[in-house]
Amino acid sequence: MTPAPTKRTQIHRHPERGMDDPATIGSILDEALTCTVAWVDEQGRPRALPTIQARVGQTLYLHGSRAARAWKAAASGAEVCVVATIIDELVLARTSPHHSMNYRSVVVYGTAREVTDPAELRAAARAITRHVVPGREDDAIEPREADWRETLILGMPLTEASAKVRTGPPNDDPGDLDADVWAGTMPLRIVADPPRPAPDLKPGIAEPSYLRDFRRP
Amino acid sequence: MTPAPTKRTQIHRHPERGMDDPATIGSILDEALTCTVAWVDEQGRPRALPTIQARVGQTLYLHGSRAARAWKAAASGAEVCVVATIIDELVLARTSPHHSMNYRSVVVYGTAREVTDPAELRAAARAITRHVVPGREDDAIEPREADWRETLILGMPLTEASAKVRTGPPNDDPGDLDADVWAGTMPLRIVADPPRPAPDLKPGIAEPSYLRDFRRP
Repeated sequence: MTPAPTKRTQIHRHPERGMDDPATIGSILDEALTCTVAWVDEQGRPRALPTIQARVGQTLYLHGSRAARAWKAAASGAEVCVVATIIDELVLARTSPHHSMNYRSVVVYGTAREVTDPAELRAAARAITRHVVPGREDDAIEPREADWRETLILGMPLTEASAKVRTGPPNDDPGDLDADVWAGTMPLRIVADPPRPAPDLKPGIAEPSYLRDFRRP
Repeated sequence: MTPAPTKRTQIHRHPERGMDDPATIGSILDEALTCTVAWVDEQGRPRALPTIQARVGQTLYLHGSRAARAWKAAASGAEVCVVATIIDELVLARTSPHHSMNYRSVVVYGTAREVTDPAELRAAARAITRHVVPGREDDAIEPREADWRETLILGMPLTEASAKVRTGPPNDDPGDLDADVWAGTMPLRIVADPPRPAPDLKPGIAEPSYLRDFRRP
């Protein structure tokens, strides 16, 4: 299903960077470690906070705390806007206003629901663990009944979503190409340093291989 | 000046992670490459998008495009909420609900104004370039009059802001410490790969040393 382009998901600035195919939207949501969730509070004012997401098909799951006000509002049907951003390269142009980043970002609009079905809750919790470290979901102890008194998972459909992607070298004006200023891009990457065992880790437990395999993307 | 704790900046979930000192707030805003800006649209619905920020003392500058609707609303005095997040470590607990991240995040609330004073505009543009690559601001050609027809810079005071910081190992329940599951943290870091010169780079321009020095943090 291709998300319907709506007035909100239409890209006004640099429309050529807009991408609405579910594969692009999905891959960005999968790769970004975290996202930012925005909502409107009771006074009609903007609020936002960071959280962890996971995608299962065309559903986006968000991990929340029952103590946080955002999740109360969102779980009771308030509209939310979710933004995920990945920075791939810094773009250094000759002129400062042409500086940019090669990025991939997604904006999702919609109404979330609290996931309550036990099978969906279990699958969503596994997806959130897997989102951060693939393989970990088969290793970690699954949530118990009591855990859901503190934590909640929201689900929202990926029906109103858009991606924006910039790639390539800087776009300086032709008249600036002769300037004596270096121009180009600098690729960035997230790397993992060696894992640090918990001080209270039971002796004899080996470091899991999925930690060595971790890479983003 | 210490930002006044308001109802909105009070931390409800894990209040022990709350940090309101300007030094912590400033360092997070300085280190995070980008931020997410949220606002409320004309229909009263939440909207958000990613952008680049820079901090100068107790003022946060945001880089925007005149074509984007967010910036129109924000420049005309709408309230905004800015979130910046840095992920330092993945936190792997024995149980999946105790998984977490060691992160540093800032939320800023306020009303932005469009920067129009030429001296402040120049200083803010330099700060935004420097925010991304320190040293670059002395090298790139500064904005010209015509650039401000497409770009705008918003300024907002850091008076209503809070930081949230998690550090340390996983916090499993005592009864789970004997489980045969590895637990600990995995540090993450942003690294830069070798710069890629623009295809139209004028021959004979050396790669600037500030690119080799780039690190985050």
